[in-house]
Amino acid sequence: MAASARGKAVYVASAVPGLFSHIKRLLPNAPTVQIDQQLFQDGLVTDELKLQIKDAEILVADPPLIGELLYVNDLKLKLVNSTWAGVNVMMGKVDPSMGKPKFILTRTGEGFGQIMGEYVVGHIIATERRFKETYSQQKEHMWAQKSLKTFRPLTSVNIGILGLGLIGNEVARMCKCMGMTVTGIKRQDSMSPSCQSVDNYGMLENLADVLPQLDYLCSILPSTPQTRNLLSGDILSHCKNKKPLFINIGRGDVIDEESLVKAIKSEWLGGAILDVFNKEPLPTTSELWDLSNVTITPHVSGPSLPEKVAECFVDNYNRYINGEQLKYQVDWVKGY
Amino acid sequence: MAASARGKAVYVASAVPGLFSHIKRLLPNAPTVQIDQQLFQDGLVTDELKLQIKDAEILVADPPLIGELLYVNDLKLKLVNSTWAGVNVMMGKVDPSMGKPKFILTRTGEGFGQIMGEYVVGHIIATERRFKETYSQQKEHMWAQKSLKTFRPLTSVNIGILGLGLIGNEVARMCKCMGMTVTGIKRQDSMSPSCQSVDNYGMLENLADVLPQLDYLCSILPSTPQTRNLLSGDILSHCKNKKPLFINIGRGDVIDEESLVKAIKSEWLGGAILDVFNKEPLPTTSELWDLSNVTITPHVSGPSLPEKVAECFVDNYNRYINGEQLKYQVDWVKGY
Repeated sequence: MAASARGKAVYVASAVPGLFSHIKRLLPNAPTVQIDQQLFQDGLVTDELKLQIKDAEILVADPPLIGELLYVNDLKLKLVNSTWAGVNVMMGKVDPSMGKPKFILTRTGEGFGQIMGEYVVGHIIATERRFKETYSQQKEHMWAQKSLKTFRPLTSVNIGILGLGLIGNEVARMCKCMGMTVTGIKRQDSMSPSCQSVDNYGMLENLADVLPQLDYLCSILPSTPQTRNLLSGDILSHCKNKKPLFINIGRGDVIDEESLVKAIKSEWLGGAILDVFNKEPLPTTSELWDLSNVTITPHVSGPSLPEKVAECFVDNYNRYINGEQLKYQVDWVKGY
Repeated sequence: MAASARGKAVYVASAVPGLFSHIKRLLPNAPTVQIDQQLFQDGLVTDELKLQIKDAEILVADPPLIGELLYVNDLKLKLVNSTWAGVNVMMGKVDPSMGKPKFILTRTGEGFGQIMGEYVVGHIIATERRFKETYSQQKEHMWAQKSLKTFRPLTSVNIGILGLGLIGNEVARMCKCMGMTVTGIKRQDSMSPSCQSVDNYGMLENLADVLPQLDYLCSILPSTPQTRNLLSGDILSHCKNKKPLFINIGRGDVIDEESLVKAIKSEWLGGAILDVFNKEPLPTTSELWDLSNVTITPHVSGPSLPEKVAECFVDNYNRYINGEQLKYQVDWVKGY
C-alpha cells in the first residue's frame, strides 16, 4: 500500500452522514481532516472555512460548497472530489470569463446505478401490482383478490430509457434481467457504446415514433443545455395510445411542470413516478402532489451512500497519488 | 402442425378469466368446449356437469373441481390439466383406499416464477426504500428526505430461499441479478441440481445456523407432510440478531399463526410479507392485519395468468397428441 504510506492529507467537508469515517477506514495511513458542517452548511466560504482548508490539496465535498470554491484565491486545492453524481449545481457557478478553475474536479461515478435501478424496478412493480391499493386494503382488513390478480407481468412491459450513461446502463440491466423489454433512446450521432441490456434503440430525433411503443418512459438525463425542456410542450401527446408512465430520476428540468401536468391530465401519460423537479423541495402548492397515478418521492432515488462515495473517492485518491489517470473527471468546458 | 390437424377436443372448466380464448387462439384447429362457470363454481359434480363433460378426454380445470372429479365414474377423462401450480387442494382429496385416479394429472408449471419473483423483489425494495412512508408523506405534501435517504442497497441484503424448485430458482435468479446475496436452503439429502443463482447453501437440518445470517427468509415451499409447521415453535428465535423479514409465498401452513405472531412480537423477525395463510381468506379478526412491519396480500403473488396457463397446457396437449413425455405431471403417490 505505497499509496497509503505516502499518505497525502484528505480534507472532508460533506453532509453525507458517516462519509468521514468510511474514508478514514479505507485510508488508515493518510491524515484525514473533518471540517465542521456548521462551517459550510450555508454554502458561504467564510474566512474561518478558508483558514481550515488553507493547506488542503485534496478535498472531498458536496456540490453546493464546491460551487463556491471555484474561483477562491489563496487555496492549494489540486483535487476536489464531489460526493454527488450530478454536476449541474457546480456547473451553474462556472463563469467562462474567469478562466477554468485551478483544481481537478472528479465526481462520484459509482454506486448510483445500483440504487437508482432498484428505485425504478421497485416503483414499476409497485405500480403494476398496485401496492398503494394493497396497503389501503390491509388497513381495512380487506381480502380483495380480484383486482390484484390481474396485472401485467414485467415480461409484457417495454421501458424506454433516456440517458444511457453509467447509471442508465445499470438501470437497463436491471430492467432487462427482471424481464422487461428495454428500448434505449439516444441521439443519432451518439458515440456511446451500445448497451448489452438494450433490446432496441430509438432515436431522440424521432421521439414521436419511439414514444407510442412504450409502457414506461424513464429519464436519467442530466441537466445540460441539450436536455432542458426536451419533453416540454406537446411532444408527450405521442404517448396517448399506450399511456406510459413517466419516471424521472434525472433532473426535473427535462420537462416544465405545466407540460407535465398537462400530459397527465390529458391522459397522454398514464401517470408518473417523480423523484426530481424543477423546483426542489417541490412546493406544497404544486398540483403534482394530488394527481392520481402520480407518485412523488423527495429526490431520494440515488442518494450518495457513504460507503460508495468513499470507495469511489479512494480509488481516485490512489490513482492521483500514483500519477495514474483519474476516473469520472469533470470537463470544465463540456460541463459533465 | 399435425397436432392441431388431428385436433382432439379440449374441455375448459376454469374460473381463470380469458383462459378459454387464449387456448382457442393457440389451438385454432382443435374443437374447444367451454363449460359454464355456474356449473362448477360450487365445486359439486352435478349430473348436469357430468353430462356436459361425458365425452371429454382432455380437460383443463381448476383444482377445486379436479379434486371432486378424482373418483367419479362414467367419465372418459385421460388428461386433466390443472390451472394452478400448487396441487395440495387436489391431493387433499386423494383417498389411497380408492386406488389411483384413472386420469393423468398435469399442473401449470410455467409462468409463476416470473411473477412470484417480481412480487418478492418488489416487496423487498418497497420495504428497504419505505414505500408506505413515501405514500403517506405524499398525501401530506411532505418533502421529507432524511429518513428516505438512508437505506440498505440490495447488494447488502442476504435472502434465504426455502424451496428451490422451478419457482424458487427463478426467484433466486431475480434476487441475484438485482444484487442480493442468495442463500439456498435445502435438505441434506436433496437431489435437486444446484442453482446457478445461489451464492451459498444452508441445510434445513441446521436451520439454527442458517437463520442468523439472513436479512430475508423467503418460503416458496408447497404444503406437504414434510413442510407443514417446519417454522412453527421457537425455531425463528435464531433470527433475533439480524431480525430478517419473513416472506411467505408458498403455503401458509409452513408456520402456525401463533408462532408467527410470536416471532414478530418478540422481534425475532423484523416483520413479514405474507401472501398465504393457514386460513384463507385471512379472517378479519386475525392479529396479523395490524402488526407493524407486516404487509398482507390476499394470495396474489402468483395467480394463474391466462396466457401462461394456456401456453403451458398447449405444450402438454401437443406432447399428449404426439405420444411424447408430458411436463409437470403430478405423481398421485408422492403428491407433487
